[in-house]
Amino acid sequence: MNGSRYWINGQPGTQLDVADRALQYGDGVFETLRIRNAKPEYLALHLQRLRAGCERLGFPGIDWQTLRRELHDLAAQHDGRVMKIILSRGSAGRGYRPAPGSAVTRIVSIHALPEQPDTAGGVRVRICTTRLGYQPLLAGIKHLNRLEQVLGRMECEGRWQEGLMRDPEDNIVEGTMSNLFLVSGDRLVTPSLARAGVEGITRARILAIARRMGIHCDIRDVNADELATIDGMFVCNSLIGIWPVTRFEGRSLPIGDLTGELQQRLLESMCAEH
Amino acid sequence: MNGSRYWINGQPGTQLDVADRALQYGDGVFETLRIRNAKPEYLALHLQRLRAGCERLGFPGIDWQTLRRELHDLAAQHDGRVMKIILSRGSAGRGYRPAPGSAVTRIVSIHALPEQPDTAGGVRVRICTTRLGYQPLLAGIKHLNRLEQVLGRMECEGRWQEGLMRDPEDNIVEGTMSNLFLVSGDRLVTPSLARAGVEGITRARILAIARRMGIHCDIRDVNADELATIDGMFVCNSLIGIWPVTRFEGRSLPIGDLTGELQQRLLESMCAEH
Repeated sequence: MNGSRYWINGQPGTQLDVADRALQYGDGVFETLRIRNAKPEYLALHLQRLRAGCERLGFPGIDWQTLRRELHDLAAQHDGRVMKIILSRGSAGRGYRPAPGSAVTRIVSIHALPEQPDTAGGVRVRICTTRLGYQPLLAGIKHLNRLEQVLGRMECEGRWQEGLMRDPEDNIVEGTMSNLFLVSGDRLVTPSLARAGVEGITRARILAIARRMGIHCDIRDVNADELATIDGMFVCNSLIGIWPVTRFEGRSLPIGDLTGELQQRLLESMCAEH
Repeated sequence: MNGSRYWINGQPGTQLDVADRALQYGDGVFETLRIRNAKPEYLALHLQRLRAGCERLGFPGIDWQTLRRELHDLAAQHDGRVMKIILSRGSAGRGYRPAPGSAVTRIVSIHALPEQPDTAGGVRVRICTTRLGYQPLLAGIKHLNRLEQVLGRMECEGRWQEGLMRDPEDNIVEGTMSNLFLVSGDRLVTPSLARAGVEGITRARILAIARRMGIHCDIRDVNADELATIDGMFVCNSLIGIWPVTRFEGRSLPIGDLTGELQQRLLESMCAEH
């Protein structure tokens, strides 16, 4: 099976009600994860972020039990693939204001693992012209308003595997589809996501692993200028794990021991927990 | 006919491909307009904004002739109703980066005119807690990333007919579904939309009418504090025309002569041009 498959509210199907608010306003949240050992990887963390998103958007009640069961069932049948989960506020009249009594639409889909560039030797990363706006109300959650990422991603054609996105004040926030870590000596730095960006599950995993290793990680604003003097850099997400950055704009970067060790431990922790 | 009707790429239908990027990322633009005298009102201006949006998002080529013909045909059959037009980047693989060769999806729908509150005596307007982020790349165009408006609109329950939204620096930008004009003596002020907000078609019409009347209109940042001392205020959009604001937060406002005259001339110009 190479194609994608979709389930809408538990039923197989490829067509959605055109009045759905996900389509009309981007009124929803989503998750993308790997199925490993026939299980949805780090499902608890993904469900936690989904739940935080639904709360932030004021969604009506959701049957989490049914969703969790459905995801486990689908994962059992689609090992090694990618699972995407969308929760939309559903179809509810016309206009920005949700109609009372709307019911959340859940869309689950299974996809092939995207073709990855050969990243064993690290990836090439640039800075995007497209910037992220500040929106603390939506920062952190993985909502469906993704035009900034689409525009940023369009800048990563050709030899650039990822692009870093700045906020209006020249802080680097994240990649177009990943979170960013910087290596400075034996310490880590990752940008604060209080005003923009998505709080990645793999980012949280890496923070936990670093803590267990006794490695300090600063979570703070990172001005773009800092990147000129940094010792190392990597990006991460649920599908790629860790990509070491070996070329940043015009500069070569080494894959340091710390990045290698984190890659190894992330992989081990994935296997151990399943 | 009270229900809504939909056409997808010219074919009647209520179901959209679930892989469509409008749904996955809010990757599209839209317009809402009135059908008056069996014609799409100010269609040229709406198409112009659609075109600007498609260019800003880097959409592939669009068959504007076919779209225009379709809109005229539908308007001829649905006088007095509301028309909504969505252009999406279409279905094109998974991931933020659009796949090459994607074709734009056009969704046209016809709806009943929304039930309007009795606004002859003016409307009650508050300031929303939800703010608009700065995003100059998306400012002005009417894209499908509308979570800010959804959250803002949810604050306008009950006795508030509209809510005004501030930017991060306490400037008032617009209403949740309208643009804002302030009356100061014999002059008008309307907020700049360079970093946030939608450049409304009715706003443009009012600016043109004011110019013809010899009335000066400042387009500039408007700090929220200014609203405490303003002589009058109105909001506008393509469906409501002009709503005079007679209650702003705790304060009563008169419907001045200028607002009344603009209402009258806007209505006349609508009739004259059709």
